[in-house]
Amino acid sequence: MNKDLKEQIVDLVTPDLEKVEQALEENLSPHLDLVKQIASHLLFSGGKRLRPLLFIHAARMCGYKGTNEVLFSIIFEFLHAATLLHDDVVDGADMRRGRPAAHTCWPAPQVVLTGDFLLARALDIAAGTKEPRVISVIAKITRDMSQGEIDQLAQKGRKDLTEDQYLDIIERKTAVLIQGACQCAAILAKVSRQKENALKSFGFHLGMAFQMADDLLDYTATAEQLGKNPGADMREGKLTLPLIYSLARACPKDRKWMENLMANPDVDPSQFKKLQEKLVALNAIAYTRAIARTHVDNAKKSLEIYDSSLSKSVLTLIADYAVYRKI
Amino acid sequence: MNKDLKEQIVDLVTPDLEKVEQALEENLSPHLDLVKQIASHLLFSGGKRLRPLLFIHAARMCGYKGTNEVLFSIIFEFLHAATLLHDDVVDGADMRRGRPAAHTCWPAPQVVLTGDFLLARALDIAAGTKEPRVISVIAKITRDMSQGEIDQLAQKGRKDLTEDQYLDIIERKTAVLIQGACQCAAILAKVSRQKENALKSFGFHLGMAFQMADDLLDYTATAEQLGKNPGADMREGKLTLPLIYSLARACPKDRKWMENLMANPDVDPSQFKKLQEKLVALNAIAYTRAIARTHVDNAKKSLEIYDSSLSKSVLTLIADYAVYRKI
Repeated sequence: MNKDLKEQIVDLVTPDLEKVEQALEENLSPHLDLVKQIASHLLFSGGKRLRPLLFIHAARMCGYKGTNEVLFSIIFEFLHAATLLHDDVVDGADMRRGRPAAHTCWPAPQVVLTGDFLLARALDIAAGTKEPRVISVIAKITRDMSQGEIDQLAQKGRKDLTEDQYLDIIERKTAVLIQGACQCAAILAKVSRQKENALKSFGFHLGMAFQMADDLLDYTATAEQLGKNPGADMREGKLTLPLIYSLARACPKDRKWMENLMANPDVDPSQFKKLQEKLVALNAIAYTRAIARTHVDNAKKSLEIYDSSLSKSVLTLIADYAVYRKI
Repeated sequence: MNKDLKEQIVDLVTPDLEKVEQALEENLSPHLDLVKQIASHLLFSGGKRLRPLLFIHAARMCGYKGTNEVLFSIIFEFLHAATLLHDDVVDGADMRRGRPAAHTCWPAPQVVLTGDFLLARALDIAAGTKEPRVISVIAKITRDMSQGEIDQLAQKGRKDLTEDQYLDIIERKTAVLIQGACQCAAILAKVSRQKENALKSFGFHLGMAFQMADDLLDYTATAEQLGKNPGADMREGKLTLPLIYSLARACPKDRKWMENLMANPDVDPSQFKKLQEKLVALNAIAYTRAIARTHVDNAKKSLEIYDSSLSKSVLTLIADYAVYRKI
């Protein structure tokens, strides 16, 4: 099932993906080699281009009449890459997309400034839409994402994060950008506010599902699948839904044991394996997957207002893929 | 003379300044206390509000008919503050505006993200202009500034920086933002392209003069006037015009001696005093001041296309102040 779903999507989006890669390459155009190196290290290291693909197919589903959907789609990949660069510096994580994080190859200041540069490029292209509402959405994305990161940083190491606080963090960290990409497609295609809100809702639920699935993979995938060691969130003291759910339901002894594992960079593999088993036993994996699946269902329901089309099918497949994917 | 000039400007802009302070306060509106603390530390620590004042008076000189000149003016203060926060982290400087730099009070990641947040706020307000060309100018400012910083970082410690390379760096570091503030005022006031270019040119020359005067003060002002120890640029290995000019004209023995002082964080005051005397003897102070003054003259000439008005007088006074100020 998983492989089929991925193959179906790949078949449908391959021509778009090639255009997106080309547009990313062409629009990087910095004057400085160093910026190009740092930005390329991240941009061309096997990202899924989820955000550009969502934008392109959302625009087409809305009947976008212009010719710039590929160019405008990369706004959201540049925004995404900019925040990844800043987050890497902020988190101090060593690996990203299976490669050393940028800040382990270059000094942090250069990485921060390259993030700023990518943000500026995103803005440059966004200005080309000549649509103030698109700029407002992008401003909101940037504001929410930076606030979400600061919030997450402030909560780091807290062992009493609630599910609501977690939802709030992942909304700002991930959902806001995916929601914004979908909404901007609707704005540029000039659909009704009702249809725009439907796409916004689709993006929100998809983003929530994607982040939950990501957080889940940190407990369920192998190092090879992830491109980094699983359990990284826990070792960094970052609480995500599987652990939040488990902490709230574990017996005092187990809770104490889990709390001791958190924020410990040297948890040994046998301990981590025991934790994985505990999460399964406490139903935390199934619970997280169920919540993610509900978001996917809501995402798909949001699209009911739209007539059937190839692009609507692509969006629906991507939504399914969000929770069924193994990597 | 100096005091008179400053007093004249203060008299003319005090009512605007109060409105700018109020708008900055009202528009900071973050959800998080930490962001507010970090942003306020920098924003409300005695900045000159040069960029908002330039914007407001440029808009009025252009006959701007709207009612948002104060609100839009703070775009440029937020942009300025955002880059100062990132620069502080990048430079690792300890003092800023006479207070400890933000990154010495808070962890660098929070400071970086607060910079991102301020950039997002600037963008938010800019989107409210509903003028795509304003967004393009802001995108260009952000891009040039981040590239300029990266460039400066890459050149740091180089002892063979040329005058042209220096001019290029300060253009992107300082002039582009001031130029952009003036140009956006013209765009929003819907003047002719010729008048817009005149204001853009005014901003460019003013920005160049301001940065040169700033760089000069690092060799000529006292610690009390500066709010930090003079000679900071040199100790950080940052070459500016007075030293570039001197290095090119010193005898080999003196050049060797100056090169040894550079990038040395522990230069003692008597050595620094000797360097100051050397710069005077080599005519470097007078040369830098003359170049800055030429930029001020060009800035003022750029405004000839505009009829006389109170705001034109304010802009002219500010241009004079750029090189005659003592702090």
